[in-house]
Amino acid sequence: MALVVQKYGGTSVADAERVRSVARRIAERVEAGDRVVAAVSAMGSSTNELIALAREVSGNPHPREMDVLLSTGETRSSALLSMALDDLGHPAVSLSGVQAGIRTDTVYGSARISGIDTARIVRELDAGRVVIVAGFQGVSEDFDITTLGRGASDLTAISLAAGLKADACEIYTDVAGIYSADPRICPSARPLADIGYDEMLELATTGARVMHARAVEVAALNDVDVLVTSSFEDAPGTLIHAEAIMEQAEKVRGIAHQAHVAKVTVRGVPDRPGIAADLFEPLATAGVSVDTIVQNASVEDLTDLTFTVEREEVGRAVGVVEGILSEIGASEVVSDPDLGSVSIVGTGMATTPGFAARMFRALFDHDINIELISTSEIRITCIVRADQVAEAVTALHDAFQLDRED
Amino acid sequence: MALVVQKYGGTSVADAERVRSVARRIAERVEAGDRVVAAVSAMGSSTNELIALAREVSGNPHPREMDVLLSTGETRSSALLSMALDDLGHPAVSLSGVQAGIRTDTVYGSARISGIDTARIVRELDAGRVVIVAGFQGVSEDFDITTLGRGASDLTAISLAAGLKADACEIYTDVAGIYSADPRICPSARPLADIGYDEMLELATTGARVMHARAVEVAALNDVDVLVTSSFEDAPGTLIHAEAIMEQAEKVRGIAHQAHVAKVTVRGVPDRPGIAADLFEPLATAGVSVDTIVQNASVEDLTDLTFTVEREEVGRAVGVVEGILSEIGASEVVSDPDLGSVSIVGTGMATTPGFAARMFRALFDHDINIELISTSEIRITCIVRADQVAEAVTALHDAFQLDRED
Repeated sequence: MALVVQKYGGTSVADAERVRSVARRIAERVEAGDRVVAAVSAMGSSTNELIALAREVSGNPHPREMDVLLSTGETRSSALLSMALDDLGHPAVSLSGVQAGIRTDTVYGSARISGIDTARIVRELDAGRVVIVAGFQGVSEDFDITTLGRGASDLTAISLAAGLKADACEIYTDVAGIYSADPRICPSARPLADIGYDEMLELATTGARVMHARAVEVAALNDVDVLVTSSFEDAPGTLIHAEAIMEQAEKVRGIAHQAHVAKVTVRGVPDRPGIAADLFEPLATAGVSVDTIVQNASVEDLTDLTFTVEREEVGRAVGVVEGILSEIGASEVVSDPDLGSVSIVGTGMATTPGFAARMFRALFDHDINIELISTSEIRITCIVRADQVAEAVTALHDAFQLDRED
Repeated sequence: MALVVQKYGGTSVADAERVRSVARRIAERVEAGDRVVAAVSAMGSSTNELIALAREVSGNPHPREMDVLLSTGETRSSALLSMALDDLGHPAVSLSGVQAGIRTDTVYGSARISGIDTARIVRELDAGRVVIVAGFQGVSEDFDITTLGRGASDLTAISLAAGLKADACEIYTDVAGIYSADPRICPSARPLADIGYDEMLELATTGARVMHARAVEVAALNDVDVLVTSSFEDAPGTLIHAEAIMEQAEKVRGIAHQAHVAKVTVRGVPDRPGIAADLFEPLATAGVSVDTIVQNASVEDLTDLTFTVEREEVGRAVGVVEGILSEIGASEVVSDPDLGSVSIVGTGMATTPGFAARMFRALFDHDINIELISTSEIRITCIVRADQVAEAVTALHDAFQLDRED
């Protein structure tokens, strides 16, 4: 009798019919002899509707209250899914974050899980009930409701799987798994059979939005194998686990991209120690999240510093830099908001020659100019024109033959 | 510095604009030096929408999960109202039923408050915050969410006022107070300056839907004076308190009515001891709520037993009686679903002669036939044809001169 932790996303429970369909899926599992704990997201677009409502009420909604408000979305779906299971003859119980013992810090909106007290869940399982946990939420030391950040129901499920030492952790979503590239822009993209935590992390942070980076980190930290699969069809799904199997190391596993990236260049920066800190500390203080950073070689002790940010943050970033321009002795700041990024991801990339060259060649063959390059152990990213991102993804998918079976 | 407990109903917080308007009303009170605890209902018709959603998901929604689901409505409004107050520069905090220490039994859907632990509320007030409590909800000994029944946010406010020994308890609603009759059918009806608990209870149970009976009972039990007034205009409102002032005793204070009443008559019932129990116990077991009961004088040891129920329960009631007809030795059961009730309510009615006679005369003068009569210490109720209820209310309002100032 295996203990399975599942997670169902917002599209999987978007309306009453889909809630009933998820209940039937869980019921089959229970009838097959498994014990099931399911974390569930808010229905469809309800979280966005609540955010809009809060903004109507307050110009600057208080973060504690925003968490109270948003948590109700997951609470609702957990109650509905539990009802649907009861209706199928399977006793079920919905638990809120506090009831499920999901303890967090007090950083409202993006609280971190500090521990899970599984006593109540175990008691309910032992009583023969299916346990439906409201995803995305926890409780602070002050007994206040916290939320774990957008898309964090994955985090709830993975943390529960770790805390309960579950035999399996399954994330049900609206796609068939982790794809070799975004299938909406690359028709030959296909679901991967498996992928390593590190590779998944690079895909998640560079644009593949199936799993949030923090959820992947927690899975890696607790060595939880995570199956990502579809709640709408019977797909084998993608297993995210400790290491890609041997034959798949030193291969490009997927193409990630970001459609909306802006580049900010600070010109004529004096090339002295500490200059980067002087520039990036004010940006961090202003809450601007900087992605790639590139510093050109100096000419006459002056250099250009270029960094990328999400497109919607470019105005704020430029404002911050303009405010400190004379202080740091730089000459000017310019920006380009119409860029995107494309990345190849795969274990062993840094230690295996030839990947970068093949990537650059493939982009050149499609007349795609590279604006910036950055690399990690398992990723090479090129910043290109926004209107060439889709073509770049497809070109790289072809070049690395990702349409073929592993 | 007075401590005031307020309650705002669903229409008072139906949208973002009204939530902000309620926040301004509370802010004025805080600026005048008072400390405020406000209980709040779910927005507008959201509770009905949730009930409909639950019924889409399950033919017979599990009561525990129904409470989890419904409680989210009040949680949402409490968070939004708290945000709106913060926006006005008044620190506020929303508390759920469990956070506000509202302990109940485990009768889901109509849980009874067993006690209130005010520690957290007092701590928040001492920290200078306005406390917004999600109405209608509590927490069971098993740490599960319970709800107190429809319209029970009044109960939350009155219980909090009792537990906190508040200086005032104010119920804000969409009307100007407790009226001498329903103003929608009796244009000369006017708000009463004050009314006794007992009178209010009779008005509440016989159709005046401004305050729920249980809320009035709890106010009486704890001697909490309750001001019922409008959240949309500056009305003096109606004070519900221990006794109507002297000059108002022995007067009809208001006319209550119910539009949809059905009458069930069991014919040829043997007139033996225990027969009423044999009849009404199966009805109670089936959850049929019986209102007025009348037994005619016997003829040859056979009698007719008549009782009234809400119109929508008549089918169930007749079914139950048909099932036990031969067992109790009665001859037949007939029903009339097209009735209503009209009541005059006032302290001292039973001990003062003439009220009943004036009531019957007024109805006769309007050609309104009386189908059944029942009385209490402070109420006389006549069952009449449903289509004559409105005329009966106005006739009685005129006859007892309720359009005049107290």
